[in-house]
Amino acid sequence: MEKKDLKSKWNLTPEGWNLEGVPACQDENRYTQVGRSVPRIDGPIKVKGEAIYTGDMTLPGMVYGKIKRSTYAHAIIKNIDCSKALELPGVLAVLTGDEAPNKWGIVPQAANETVLAVGKVRFYGEGVAAVAALDEETAEAALELIEVEYEPLPVLLDPFESMERSQEVLIHEDSKGNIMHAGEQVYGDVDKAFAGCEYVLEREFHTNYPQHGFLEPHSALASYDAQNGQLHLWASSQIPHYLHRQMSIVLEIPMNKIRVTLPTIGGGFGGKGEAAPSEFVACLLSRKVGRPVKVVYDRQEVFYTNKGRHPCHMKVKMGLDKDGYIQAVDFDNTLDKGAYSGWGIVVLFYTASMIHLPYKVPNARFRGRSVYTNKPSTGAMRGLGGVQPRWALECLMDEMAEMMGISPYELKLKNAIESGHTCINNMFVPHSEFKKCLETAVKKSGFLEKQGKLPFGKGIGMAGGYYITGTAYTLYQNYKPHTTVMIRVDTEGGVTLLCAAAEIGQGCNTVMAQMVAEELGIHYEDVHVQSGDTEIGAFDLGSFASRLTYAAGAAIKMACVEINQRLKETAAGMLGVRADQLVIKNHEIYSMYEIKKRISWEKAVEAYTSIKGTLVGMGNFSPPRRKGIDIISGNRVQGANIGHSPTFGFSSQVHEVEVDVETGRIYVKKVTEAGDCGTPVNPMSVDGQVEGSIMFNIGACLYEDQKLDVNGKHLNPNFHDYKTPTTMEMPEMDTNIVESYDHSAPFGVKETGEGAVQPTFPALTNAIYDAIGVRFYNLPITPEMVLRALKD
Amino acid sequence: MEKKDLKSKWNLTPEGWNLEGVPACQDENRYTQVGRSVPRIDGPIKVKGEAIYTGDMTLPGMVYGKIKRSTYAHAIIKNIDCSKALELPGVLAVLTGDEAPNKWGIVPQAANETVLAVGKVRFYGEGVAAVAALDEETAEAALELIEVEYEPLPVLLDPFESMERSQEVLIHEDSKGNIMHAGEQVYGDVDKAFAGCEYVLEREFHTNYPQHGFLEPHSALASYDAQNGQLHLWASSQIPHYLHRQMSIVLEIPMNKIRVTLPTIGGGFGGKGEAAPSEFVACLLSRKVGRPVKVVYDRQEVFYTNKGRHPCHMKVKMGLDKDGYIQAVDFDNTLDKGAYSGWGIVVLFYTASMIHLPYKVPNARFRGRSVYTNKPSTGAMRGLGGVQPRWALECLMDEMAEMMGISPYELKLKNAIESGHTCINNMFVPHSEFKKCLETAVKKSGFLEKQGKLPFGKGIGMAGGYYITGTAYTLYQNYKPHTTVMIRVDTEGGVTLLCAAAEIGQGCNTVMAQMVAEELGIHYEDVHVQSGDTEIGAFDLGSFASRLTYAAGAAIKMACVEINQRLKETAAGMLGVRADQLVIKNHEIYSMYEIKKRISWEKAVEAYTSIKGTLVGMGNFSPPRRKGIDIISGNRVQGANIGHSPTFGFSSQVHEVEVDVETGRIYVKKVTEAGDCGTPVNPMSVDGQVEGSIMFNIGACLYEDQKLDVNGKHLNPNFHDYKTPTTMEMPEMDTNIVESYDHSAPFGVKETGEGAVQPTFPALTNAIYDAIGVRFYNLPITPEMVLRALKD
Repeated sequence: MEKKDLKSKWNLTPEGWNLEGVPACQDENRYTQVGRSVPRIDGPIKVKGEAIYTGDMTLPGMVYGKIKRSTYAHAIIKNIDCSKALELPGVLAVLTGDEAPNKWGIVPQAANETVLAVGKVRFYGEGVAAVAALDEETAEAALELIEVEYEPLPVLLDPFESMERSQEVLIHEDSKGNIMHAGEQVYGDVDKAFAGCEYVLEREFHTNYPQHGFLEPHSALASYDAQNGQLHLWASSQIPHYLHRQMSIVLEIPMNKIRVTLPTIGGGFGGKGEAAPSEFVACLLSRKVGRPVKVVYDRQEVFYTNKGRHPCHMKVKMGLDKDGYIQAVDFDNTLDKGAYSGWGIVVLFYTASMIHLPYKVPNARFRGRSVYTNKPSTGAMRGLGGVQPRWALECLMDEMAEMMGISPYELKLKNAIESGHTCINNMFVPHSEFKKCLETAVKKSGFLEKQGKLPFGKGIGMAGGYYITGTAYTLYQNYKPHTTVMIRVDTEGGVTLLCAAAEIGQGCNTVMAQMVAEELGIHYEDVHVQSGDTEIGAFDLGSFASRLTYAAGAAIKMACVEINQRLKETAAGMLGVRADQLVIKNHEIYSMYEIKKRISWEKAVEAYTSIKGTLVGMGNFSPPRRKGIDIISGNRVQGANIGHSPTFGFSSQVHEVEVDVETGRIYVKKVTEAGDCGTPVNPMSVDGQVEGSIMFNIGACLYEDQKLDVNGKHLNPNFHDYKTPTTMEMPEMDTNIVESYDHSAPFGVKETGEGAVQPTFPALTNAIYDAIGVRFYNLPITPEMVLRALKD
Repeated sequence: MEKKDLKSKWNLTPEGWNLEGVPACQDENRYTQVGRSVPRIDGPIKVKGEAIYTGDMTLPGMVYGKIKRSTYAHAIIKNIDCSKALELPGVLAVLTGDEAPNKWGIVPQAANETVLAVGKVRFYGEGVAAVAALDEETAEAALELIEVEYEPLPVLLDPFESMERSQEVLIHEDSKGNIMHAGEQVYGDVDKAFAGCEYVLEREFHTNYPQHGFLEPHSALASYDAQNGQLHLWASSQIPHYLHRQMSIVLEIPMNKIRVTLPTIGGGFGGKGEAAPSEFVACLLSRKVGRPVKVVYDRQEVFYTNKGRHPCHMKVKMGLDKDGYIQAVDFDNTLDKGAYSGWGIVVLFYTASMIHLPYKVPNARFRGRSVYTNKPSTGAMRGLGGVQPRWALECLMDEMAEMMGISPYELKLKNAIESGHTCINNMFVPHSEFKKCLETAVKKSGFLEKQGKLPFGKGIGMAGGYYITGTAYTLYQNYKPHTTVMIRVDTEGGVTLLCAAAEIGQGCNTVMAQMVAEELGIHYEDVHVQSGDTEIGAFDLGSFASRLTYAAGAAIKMACVEINQRLKETAAGMLGVRADQLVIKNHEIYSMYEIKKRISWEKAVEAYTSIKGTLVGMGNFSPPRRKGIDIISGNRVQGANIGHSPTFGFSSQVHEVEVDVETGRIYVKKVTEAGDCGTPVNPMSVDGQVEGSIMFNIGACLYEDQKLDVNGKHLNPNFHDYKTPTTMEMPEMDTNIVESYDHSAPFGVKETGEGAVQPTFPALTNAIYDAIGVRFYNLPITPEMVLRALKD
């Protein structure tokens, strides 16, 4: 179904509601709040400039923290002399790594980062000391007065060199071979399968080193109260609860004494999905000086400490039978981990699950290793773990289709999975409209008519993709609900959703308001969302891995059951009918059999709360747990949920490009996209996510790459030298939400924010091949590379 | 019991706890959190200057609102010309009364105030127009440019003159005789009782016109979001929920679209117990200009618009039998209402209930009327309705004791009520240690040894008092819980109390944390309190009438029942014992029969939340409803709870004074106080409340009086000319908490913040009589009055 039709179907106005006698919430086509393109509830304050970001905040008595950064990428710290800095008037305290040596990291078994370097620096720009001073200028001047004596060590910037020279130099003493983690997963008899294949192709692919490019830098404001031993941290983060836990480890304060509050957040894209040293430094300095301390990075510091996307070196081999059905995949991946572990184990193994979808693969082998180098630690970045292998696999299939002399569309459609598919690694797909995504993008773009038939310099390419929805590998608490919500209905009909979800700009507060309104039979404008606070909201893992709409939706549905039941019982008494025959819809409660028996929702609320006080419903969600290989131990266990997601989103893209053969410059002219995001809770927001996703990875495919010199020093740590696409590079976009409803999912929802980044690299790479006949195996595909290739 | 003993009994340190095998929470003597003098949880941020008051706040794009004030106390507004003001660069909008004509007032049946004057001004300084401008200076300049044309009317400043001249001039067209409300309550056969009395005395008493003297002026910051139609108001208020309702009436926005948040508040004492025009003006201007608007009064504006204590003109007659037992009281009260109704009906009739306690009165008649004058509207002020009649009655009894030739102590003790007393008006006193209060203050001060025996110029006087606890006349929602609380126990043992109570400096957040900790068996430092927000918390009427500790205590107990039950069930499964045999105390859950079967509270929380997510308990409270005379209709109804309180606090004071016969100046040398506040939740806080109460009314008795000239213009609208006592005037204080436990009350608590203001006026007046032989019937008792009296 086309978007326009969807909109006319779902975009009902309140005036248009005519739902008398229709049993509510049982027919997904009758949603009135979910599925509407509504303005974002946080829109007005953002466009009026009234939103308050952490950097905008001041507290009485607040002082400023700054961090001194290493000028070596690998060196032993022989001595730090802070005495001159401490003598500078206005300086309140200096902090060094030795004062907070506890190691933190989002994967506790691998945690090896400290707030500031302890004994050794492992990348250029790593923090070595911090200062609190009355103003920023003094703090900066004090940094200059701190004297650090280094003993340089060899700098390892390439993972293969790092492994090779590990006898000579170890980045972490306990990491043999400079390998953070390595592992293998084998399903089926891969070698035998390859032996029987008609077509086999092996290629190597190498990805680049982009970072997130969020506009708001890492910012933290901390206030420690010595009397009560309580810490309050305001931070620009995607993960208030993880942050909470990391602070507890490093500061040695119980978690229940720490409050994390998220002000407005200016983007994350995964880059705020781990704690940042700024946050620890603000907290530690506040405890030290007894005053609130604010630390805001400048752009250079964001680059120096970025946890961008892992460069991957992938050897991929695929075998097809004579009819083009995939028989085996063999995938070898070497990831550049940078200096510290972070999300690394998760990213490593998550690349493994990318073999298994969105195509049927009966035999698969994954071998991988994540290798320490003297770069900033790589980490989570939109589409974590999926973007690199998706690029490799979709490009490889393009090449294999050519081998077979068929269209890549035909090859992909043939192998595409469908609803109810169980992968060889036990991942289960309850619902898929992936084929519809492929069909829609291909049909709407005229791919079949254009591919191979455009003049030289013009090309078209296609690719598919998928992503997980509603899950997360919760490394420290496998058995806990991932999300809990409280919904409060107060005396005057005021509804508040209290949760700890992180609104990082993705629009979750609006989507959650729509879902609450849908379930309670009211309007989304009536729902107030209080999110992003660990003291007010209930537990939530954070905004990452495209988990929130699904997880919060499930928890919201559960919480509303309780509220609706109580209101129905109250209304039943008032109307003299059975509670189980009542329907709640559009601010009314009425009998489904005697539709004149009805009262307003507010009257029922008033009646209930008059006797029993505020009405609260609680709901929570944990994803199902399936058998799989545990990513830490390598054992096959119940509950290894890396990649084991309750459902999956799918998408497909067709890119059309023009290559200027004089300059080598690539112009993306048009992108046709089709996405299966289940029910689009807010179609306008889905469009925004999809367009943003495509632009995000057009940037990483064509322009973005962090460059380090031989000493590991960042060469382009700013938005002048690190180029991201602007509106000038924006192609024509034709985004399409395919009709989809996942009956296993709350409201039928699936992800949309990360799946749509997956097909961009390969669709674009395949389009460039179609334009100039050159296949690229390295990213980004720069004008220099194009010119050199054309010359060859 | 003396305070020192109390402290040694209750002030247990965590180290000192040895509670193995003691069934918890059943023996009031074993409280560990309630009854401890603990530091205020809001103490550190206040003393460090980090607390954020409304006036400290800024929002991006925020502009400033100012109010133009009438220069007449009574006049018709013929025209307001705003054109010149609107032309001033930087002026964004001007507002006049016609734009918001809906009448507001805390008693809806009598509501007659508008945001700005509509058609007519009724007191000097009333708002006539308001301006929003980019900065405060521009706003002030714009006020000067607004031209208002007045037609002056006669100014009525005295209630008797107001009634007399009402044929000639009416302050409100619909108020015949310029009387806001009048009524009569008769119980028993008063005239017959007087006829049989041995001693009868009638006196007239006239009180003055003090105001609250809170340090933080009225402050409001409003942000209206036009897209969502939502209003967010930050205000310095005692009554977030009433404010919420008043805004809805005036702005014609549904209550569920309005959020009221209280930042830190610098005192209220009743003066922030009604909405303030500043709050409406901020909201209306924000809606008009589409930007956040802040309005902060200067001190002069606080005086101009103050809702200080009603001047009362009381005729009081009392009759005693030959043994000194009270047989009848006849009480006639004329209250000066000022220009608008406000809390007026409540204050009028609340003075009536003052006849019935703390002494046994078998026959009583009250007649009263509240009369409009051209002054700022009088309102609620610490000890609302009680202070004036208490002064009259206690002074009258002093004089009658002298008539009888006995000590006033003997007369008061003889007539003092005891636990289980039912007043003739049906007020029920479940528990009273009033006699112990009288005994303690008299014994500790040596009153009996000193009274009548000190040299001329030195004197001693005593008086008793009482106040309501835990009730409120909720004029708009008789059937709703007065307070609802949510208690959230999250995964890591973090406990948050979510409520809408107003922490106005009285310490309620600390006291509530202690009560939650007591019930949950944890420590008060572990409880986070989120109060004063209508969107996050649950319904609460506000901080007034000494209702909060009782009401919140009851709701907290109810909420904790649910939490404890679930944790006991969880622990029972883990320990293999029955849930009903478990005790929760001091962060442990253990069997009361097998004390080695125990687990930590946190472990049980972890186990529960691992499966079920965040644990929330809900509790609410409504005071009992007794038959009485409805204050609006005058009918006898069930639920007329004015003065019908679930329990009552009692107190007694002995004041010792020295009068300088040369200057007439009165020095209060020592105050001995004894209070029955039930269980002192935080004895240190009780001391603070009591000392503050005494100083508060020493000020109003000796120094404080608002003076108006014949035109109604304030003559002393600042703290230079309006004198309040300072630490220099602070007498020696001996405050004593008498041993008391009200088994009908949650944790055995009663009020303490307003009862202690009641005996100050009469004890001081009686002491002055003892010193110089002159009885004063007018307040304040100034040096001039003393000198004149000594001369006579």
